[in-house]
Amino acid sequence: LLRRLPAILEQHAPAHRYAIITDSNVDHLYARDLAAALGAVPHCTVFTFEAGEASKSRRTWGIITDQMLDAGLGRDSVVLAVGGGVAGDLGGFIASTYLRGVPFVQVPTSLLAMIDSSVGGKTGVDTSRGKNLVGTFYQPTVVIIDASTLKTLTDRHVRAGAAEAVKHAAIADSDYFNWIESNSEAILDRDIDVLLELVIKSVNIKSRVVSDDETEQGKRAILNFGHTVGHALETSSRYDLLHGEAVAIGMIAEAELGVSLGITEESTPATLRSAVAALQLPVKRPSNLSPQVLHETIEFDKKARYGEPRFTLLEQIGRVSQAPDGHWTHRAPEAAIFEAFSHIM
Amino acid sequence: LLRRLPAILEQHAPAHRYAIITDSNVDHLYARDLAAALGAVPHCTVFTFEAGEASKSRRTWGIITDQMLDAGLGRDSVVLAVGGGVAGDLGGFIASTYLRGVPFVQVPTSLLAMIDSSVGGKTGVDTSRGKNLVGTFYQPTVVIIDASTLKTLTDRHVRAGAAEAVKHAAIADSDYFNWIESNSEAILDRDIDVLLELVIKSVNIKSRVVSDDETEQGKRAILNFGHTVGHALETSSRYDLLHGEAVAIGMIAEAELGVSLGITEESTPATLRSAVAALQLPVKRPSNLSPQVLHETIEFDKKARYGEPRFTLLEQIGRVSQAPDGHWTHRAPEAAIFEAFSHIM
Repeated sequence: LLRRLPAILEQHAPAHRYAIITDSNVDHLYARDLAAALGAVPHCTVFTFEAGEASKSRRTWGIITDQMLDAGLGRDSVVLAVGGGVAGDLGGFIASTYLRGVPFVQVPTSLLAMIDSSVGGKTGVDTSRGKNLVGTFYQPTVVIIDASTLKTLTDRHVRAGAAEAVKHAAIADSDYFNWIESNSEAILDRDIDVLLELVIKSVNIKSRVVSDDETEQGKRAILNFGHTVGHALETSSRYDLLHGEAVAIGMIAEAELGVSLGITEESTPATLRSAVAALQLPVKRPSNLSPQVLHETIEFDKKARYGEPRFTLLEQIGRVSQAPDGHWTHRAPEAAIFEAFSHIM
Repeated sequence: LLRRLPAILEQHAPAHRYAIITDSNVDHLYARDLAAALGAVPHCTVFTFEAGEASKSRRTWGIITDQMLDAGLGRDSVVLAVGGGVAGDLGGFIASTYLRGVPFVQVPTSLLAMIDSSVGGKTGVDTSRGKNLVGTFYQPTVVIIDASTLKTLTDRHVRAGAAEAVKHAAIADSDYFNWIESNSEAILDRDIDVLLELVIKSVNIKSRVVSDDETEQGKRAILNFGHTVGHALETSSRYDLLHGEAVAIGMIAEAELGVSLGITEESTPATLRSAVAALQLPVKRPSNLSPQVLHETIEFDKKARYGEPRFTLLEQIGRVSQAPDGHWTHRAPEAAIFEAFSHIM
């Protein structure tokens, strides 16, 4: 698909000028070639930020916005985010606020971005108070996924991306869950046909959930399975844990939480552990993170979002539990949360 | 209406918590009383910024966002902007990006904000490159206009607000235009019934135009009559000119431009001049602004928006001209632009 990018854009996102937003790794791997194929400056300009979560900030957002203004990009421009989740979230936030919004194209090059963050229209940046606290809902005009870019991804990032596929399966499709576990080796070996099938299956689940609830008023919250604990792990590890790794551990903790609350089938945590381990993902928290720190991080993180910590809980693999109050997330007593932590120690 | 604010919010924008965003002038005039009526912290918290256009910045946006996060406001909060155009634009941008968007209520207290900026969903902040270059389209849940707040407005701000009413009339309704001119004295005397009728007539025009084209892909551009030259005057005066004052002069310049391009009826500039003068608004640019500086500012401003300067031009009072290419704005040769400037010297 990337070889056909100019034609695809011509058809789906024609523009006077293109801005490619990418990070310092993807810049020379893919973005420069894509820019060359699209045409010289001023028709296409590349804006590069330092790779890493630290760039997902209001500061980088302001800097790139100013660079685009200085380059004279008008409202008849299109923003392309080329890269992983950071490029997509940051690029989307820039596109959604640049001159009150210009069209936006996602070109995810990491597995995580392909199956998860590029679909659904969540954009944003982090603040010192937490991840994604500032942002918009802003749908991309088109998402262009070329699985061949997975060749240049590190093994660790392939595994971390696959964690979100496990999540999609866990909340929506037990057959897919079994398929992932039996194809774990092929995924780790980067069998391109298997990866492509993984991407397609996951995007179908994600886009179905998002289409029903674009701005997360209700059922979209089921996509947060593993994420309440996962975010806390990710933040308190200071991003030593990749997002997908943190979600893998978080899913296990939240499955255990569901069991202890009598909501989740008892065999579910073991089934999850087995699938996560088959993908060589961690099943326990880093030893330097205490339960107290994790709990404080959850409290702080969730206070800013919902007023209290809430958890997406499974009934069983493939099915999420709806709380008696109609919500797709549950409250949990502090003791049960700490009990769940004991299973990832 | 302000006395009934708690009941109105209860019905139209119920929330767990309210954030009032206001400036240092309106804070003690209205915002504190409204906050007291809504309930004590944490139910309602006031966030105050220094009055003036300089606060419409990414910096203030970041500071207030962080204050709201620190105050623990979650997604079940509602943002109220109480004040003039700056409070509305800044408050709307905060609301649209806070935790990816929380509901937003406009409580405009200036004439300009009542008849223009509070309706239509444009939010944003300025950058050193120009006004409103960063922002979103984000509709308020409800706009609450209590004309009694106009009592505390300065005469100069009443006049400046009325300039946008002249604009609404000029682009859409010649009867309304005549009504404004014949009621100029009552407007300047702040006859509350006349002001209320002015607000209603203008909001009807504005909301009709915006409803047809929410994100300014096409016909919404007619609301920019007077604004291409007006923005340049406002920016290059370093905001010595109020927005409405700059628009008043800009409308005259753009009417003259339309005449010289053979698009606008020859009597139109004189008719506009007469209405503008009756409201004691300026009809000439400040003497320290040279035509060269104005032209450079237009070039810079518009380059960032559309790639080239474009102008909304009248056919006659009450009717806007559509360009042969289907656009509701026109290009103009440089010589014609300078010729138009000569009429506001």
